[in-house]
Amino acid sequence: MSFVCLADFQAHAREHLSKSTWDFIDGGADDCFTRDDNIAAFKRIRLRPRFLRDVSQVDIKTTIQGEQISAPICIAPTGFHSLAWPDGEMSTARAAQAADICYITSTFASCTFEEIVTAAPRGLRWFQVYPYPNRELNKQLIQRVESLGFKALVMTLDVPTSGNRRQDTRNKLDLKTILLRKDLRFPEERHIASDLQMSPFDASFCWKDLSWFQGITQLPIILKGILTKEDAELAVKHNVQGIIVSNHGGRQLDDVAASIDALTEVVTAVQGKMEVYLDGGIRSGNDVLKALALGAKCVFLGRPILWGLACKGEQGVQEVLNILKKELHTSLTLAGCRSVAEISQDLVQFSRL
Amino acid sequence: MSFVCLADFQAHAREHLSKSTWDFIDGGADDCFTRDDNIAAFKRIRLRPRFLRDVSQVDIKTTIQGEQISAPICIAPTGFHSLAWPDGEMSTARAAQAADICYITSTFASCTFEEIVTAAPRGLRWFQVYPYPNRELNKQLIQRVESLGFKALVMTLDVPTSGNRRQDTRNKLDLKTILLRKDLRFPEERHIASDLQMSPFDASFCWKDLSWFQGITQLPIILKGILTKEDAELAVKHNVQGIIVSNHGGRQLDDVAASIDALTEVVTAVQGKMEVYLDGGIRSGNDVLKALALGAKCVFLGRPILWGLACKGEQGVQEVLNILKKELHTSLTLAGCRSVAEISQDLVQFSRL
Amino acid sequence: MSFVCLADFQAHAREHLSKSTWDFIDGGADDCFTRDDNIAAFKRIRLRPRFLRDVSQVDIKTTIQGEQISAPICIAPTGFHSLAWPDGEMSTARAAQAADICYITSTFASCTFEEIVTAAPRGLRWFQVYPYPNRELNKQLIQRVESLGFKALVMTLDVPTSGNRRQDTRNKLDLKTILLRKDLRFPEERHIASDLQMSPFDASFCWKDLSWFQGITQLPIILKGILTKEDAELAVKHNVQGIIVSNHGGRQLDDVAASIDALTEVVTAVQGKMEVYLDGGIRSGNDVLKALALGAKCVFLGRPILWGLACKGEQGVQEVLNILKKELHTSLTLAGCRSVAEISQDLVQFSRL
Amino acid sequence: MSFVCLADFQAHAREHLSKSTWDFIDGGADDCFTRDDNIAAFKRIRLRPRFLRDVSQVDIKTTIQGEQISAPICIAPTGFHSLAWPDGEMSTARAAQAADICYITSTFASCTFEEIVTAAPRGLRWFQVYPYPNRELNKQLIQRVESLGFKALVMTLDVPTSGNRRQDTRNKLDLKTILLRKDLRFPEERHIASDLQMSPFDASFCWKDLSWFQGITQLPIILKGILTKEDAELAVKHNVQGIIVSNHGGRQLDDVAASIDALTEVVTAVQGKMEVYLDGGIRSGNDVLKALALGAKCVFLGRPILWGLACKGEQGVQEVLNILKKELHTSLTLAGCRSVAEISQDLVQFSRL
Repeated sequence: MSFVCLADFQAHAREHLSKSTWDFIDGGADDCFTRDDNIAAFKRIRLRPRFLRDVSQVDIKTTIQGEQISAPICIAPTGFHSLAWPDGEMSTARAAQAADICYITSTFASCTFEEIVTAAPRGLRWFQVYPYPNRELNKQLIQRVESLGFKALVMTLDVPTSGNRRQDTRNKLDLKTILLRKDLRFPEERHIASDLQMSPFDASFCWKDLSWFQGITQLPIILKGILTKEDAELAVKHNVQGIIVSNHGGRQLDDVAASIDALTEVVTAVQGKMEVYLDGGIRSGNDVLKALALGAKCVFLGRPILWGLACKGEQGVQEVLNILKKELHTSLTLAGCRSVAEISQDLVQFSRL
Repeated sequence: MSFVCLADFQAHAREHLSKSTWDFIDGGADDCFTRDDNIAAFKRIRLRPRFLRDVSQVDIKTTIQGEQISAPICIAPTGFHSLAWPDGEMSTARAAQAADICYITSTFASCTFEEIVTAAPRGLRWFQVYPYPNRELNKQLIQRVESLGFKALVMTLDVPTSGNRRQDTRNKLDLKTILLRKDLRFPEERHIASDLQMSPFDASFCWKDLSWFQGITQLPIILKGILTKEDAELAVKHNVQGIIVSNHGGRQLDDVAASIDALTEVVTAVQGKMEVYLDGGIRSGNDVLKALALGAKCVFLGRPILWGLACKGEQGVQEVLNILKKELHTSLTLAGCRSVAEISQDLVQFSRL
Repeated sequence: MSFVCLADFQAHAREHLSKSTWDFIDGGADDCFTRDDNIAAFKRIRLRPRFLRDVSQVDIKTTIQGEQISAPICIAPTGFHSLAWPDGEMSTARAAQAADICYITSTFASCTFEEIVTAAPRGLRWFQVYPYPNRELNKQLIQRVESLGFKALVMTLDVPTSGNRRQDTRNKLDLKTILLRKDLRFPEERHIASDLQMSPFDASFCWKDLSWFQGITQLPIILKGILTKEDAELAVKHNVQGIIVSNHGGRQLDDVAASIDALTEVVTAVQGKMEVYLDGGIRSGNDVLKALALGAKCVFLGRPILWGLACKGEQGVQEVLNILKKELHTSLTLAGCRSVAEISQDLVQFSRL
Repeated sequence: MSFVCLADFQAHAREHLSKSTWDFIDGGADDCFTRDDNIAAFKRIRLRPRFLRDVSQVDIKTTIQGEQISAPICIAPTGFHSLAWPDGEMSTARAAQAADICYITSTFASCTFEEIVTAAPRGLRWFQVYPYPNRELNKQLIQRVESLGFKALVMTLDVPTSGNRRQDTRNKLDLKTILLRKDLRFPEERHIASDLQMSPFDASFCWKDLSWFQGITQLPIILKGILTKEDAELAVKHNVQGIIVSNHGGRQLDDVAASIDALTEVVTAVQGKMEVYLDGGIRSGNDVLKALALGAKCVFLGRPILWGLACKGEQGVQEVLNILKKELHTSLTLAGCRSVAEISQDLVQFSRL
């Protein structure tokens, strides 16, 4: 089988994973409207390419939070990579390091954070964190990842409770058991898993509690999940360092706008006071180009990374990233942009549909 | 089979009911455009969730006409429940009482109203009434249900004549015979059935006749079927106590707007002078959330209750109600609302489609 | 088989006619976009029903050009009815007379006009006419039908040349041969057929030539095929008596607007100075109601009449008309209108799509 | 098999070409969105025909760059015609000459330019050129085709790099090998093929380099690929003689607007200062009519010419052109236009979709 585009990895992964694992990775909340609209919404946006510009040298490098990355294409936090490939996040981390992009490691990694860092010591990594009812646990986790060299904290906002994924219910998927399974190589995190059995996240966590986090770390704090101008303005007011516009891949509240449809509202509200990123629905270089044209500094990949892992492990993740980087390079060249700095909103228009 | 969402009940009911019963329950008028658009219209509305609010305690209780209910999810009037489950409305009434919500009993119940009340004596019940040409019959019915403890009258406006349901015609469905069938346990209402054989409803009934009804009862009067601002304004002028925005599940005039599309027009016209409810197309907690965000005080379920009955009787209706209540609880939590009072119109936007 | 709606006649006719006859009846020009959009456009219009009006007596009678008809549902001119039923237009005429509505007889009738009149002497009939290069032929025809009691002339404007119907080309359909075929009972019209072999219609015919027709007849002249405000204004200026908004069932120029979408533009331009009618896409009582709400005085049926003929001859046409009349009666009742005079534009809104 | 419309040629060609050749001809970039939208966009435009005009004589002749052509329907540059028919561009040239329209010969012709001219010495031909890194090669090519009687240079702007056609990658299509294949009768161009192996086009080519081309030729220069008003204004400023609004048949940057959707923006920006043409999605006479109504002086056909070649060689191309000319003649007649000069923007409206 040839792997020419991300959809090829999707098709191959679907064939090779067990049904319940595929459903867990692929699933969205309720009717999966938002999951599917994340893809469809990109298709409703037209590009406006410019010609007769010198595009003999096209450079897709950029920076996030001041750190250089080889392309505005990074890895979103997703859990349980061992479900897709035996050594899980270690492979992901190696591929990210090889690709010279940022990998946001999930709290629900199936390897220890130490294993991940050891696997790819020079990689740029951010850490995804949930607020726990036991704030002390948060403090320990944050200090631990800080000392491991993670460069930013990504706080996931959209899980005050779990989304309603019907297929996982039908499959009787038991993530707590997965967390405790031996082959997930997760010895040190077992207390987290145990703790999560009681009350996974702190649903009472709110804006005023942010300052506690800001007080215990020097790392920049990125809020993941914001979809409205109202929350974007509150984020500015609370002095965080970034926003990831995201709907959790359509896995939490269904029927919200596609990420790319929510992006403009957030970017406009933020007025350049912090970096805005996006995840959800990125499947091609053109999608990256559209997100950047609408104001994203960088995009993050969720499911496609797991497809890459499921197909070929580290090698698969590298191929997924390389395909997308190559497509983005082509997209910039064909659109008349020499660098990500030259990508402006004039490059897109919403279709009449 | 697992029953994870309302669609599971629908699929199972379709398999287990006879074709003509399924067609009767499922059918819409003419081309079934409005029946189907009731569902599709909800999907055209996007949610705008808010985050970092304390949603550790979410309460979905509300009131209708001053009576407390456990959730803004009640049971719309539909006839002939014995078609779906042997003891018909008695099961429905027990499930409604267990769920602590309101059950609007249909004039065309296949149990006597006394049986229904006896089955679930503590349940909150409203009574659905048609204007009859024989006004004395209306008076007897109303006094009877008033003395049985029904708390409001729901006048169905949209049946001056029967809708044109092609499948029922093809199936030669004979509702009069059903009304007179022994196994429908309907001895006391036989005179109604006989009377209906002549002239079922009073097509001459109009706004000025409302005062006659207001004169013979102390119960609040709710008008069911209003779809326009013009009629909403007349309802205000005629001092009724509530409106159910409804198109009769798409079973009367086809090609009218989906209930949820008509809701805003009615809510705006009413200007808060009475409670506005909605039925038609509610299939998930998000649908309830959208209806409330657009101004409904409560929603009513039609077909899903019959699916629940057909699958498991009282137990099925309870499961349908519980799934929806649980979904609504999750929807509120994920949208950042602690109570139905916190649901505002900012929570929704119409999609660009 | 039960015949519950017009679509039942369509399905049955498709099964029983030869492929080339079915294709000829069913076909549209080019990609059949407009043929199909004639139907789809009606579905994009929503009805706004009003309630609590006295609709115990609903009357669907109306008049066209001062003549009373039992319903605003008449028969559009279509040719070659013998293809669908042996005695062709004689059956159509009998059914129209029985239904008490107007039948526009086509120049390409497969019976002689005398046979048609003899078959149904009391029916209201208009005559459809093309401008011929040989104007004398027009004069003879018009005087002939005038003396036969036809009450108006319907000039078809949209055939300066034949539309491009691909299926007829593939089927090598030869209408000239049909015109000359013995079993079409067409002896007296053979000279027309012969004449048509040379140059069927006068493509040079234009606005200034209308006065010649107005000079040779006292009959009202109705222009069929107008789709724009510009042509509607010219029709007013040239003192004709009516317009049929029509795209020839999508059989002439493809990609024009659906009839119902063009209606408002024409009605607005005409400013009540003449009656405006519509054909194209009428398949249900709701369609008739929508057309009247948007300003049509009456609608005309094309293909459904041929389906009725093909299924059951005169009886089939009567059933088609009766179904539609019954549906319209129900639609008016359910929409709160006692008569066609009470149908106003407030009754419809275009959907957000 | 009957060949009644262009789609018939498409279906037949698909059956008779090898998969890899069909894929190469049919393919679009990435998800083929733009390729397909080129077709769909025409279908979203409605025609507004006018009647009662003298259309007994309809003339579809026009001129481009001052040269008369029999219809505003010409041949866009596409490469490697030998893939579709043995003697390749020689057949295309003969058919174009017979049809009396313009044939834009591709740089990647599989016959020598001399062979093409010899095959059809009286045909109107333009030459499609890419800017090469080796400018001397461009100069030789241009002087050669100028002396061969080509009348204009069409500079393709949208290939600073190749589009990402997934099927060609899967098929391991090797165009360089094709260029060097003996049976492509391409002896004299082998140095081009060799040169292309290094660096096909000059991605550094930009607006200021245009003057070099303008300095070495007297031929009018047409820019192919412009899609925005910004580039259209630059084209005016740089004194070129024409623009072909084109997205390269959806083969370069995917997700750009359909050609017909971009046309109005370009025509408006150009303000009549040069001729504007269009390619992409023309499949019927109505499509040509719409393009002209929106301001195109002429349209160019890409894939349909290759379908014609693949089906019947020269004869097939002639049939494709004749079908389209006949359809355009019919479209003008039915729309009330006597000549291309009478086609105005009033003839179209965008649908509500």
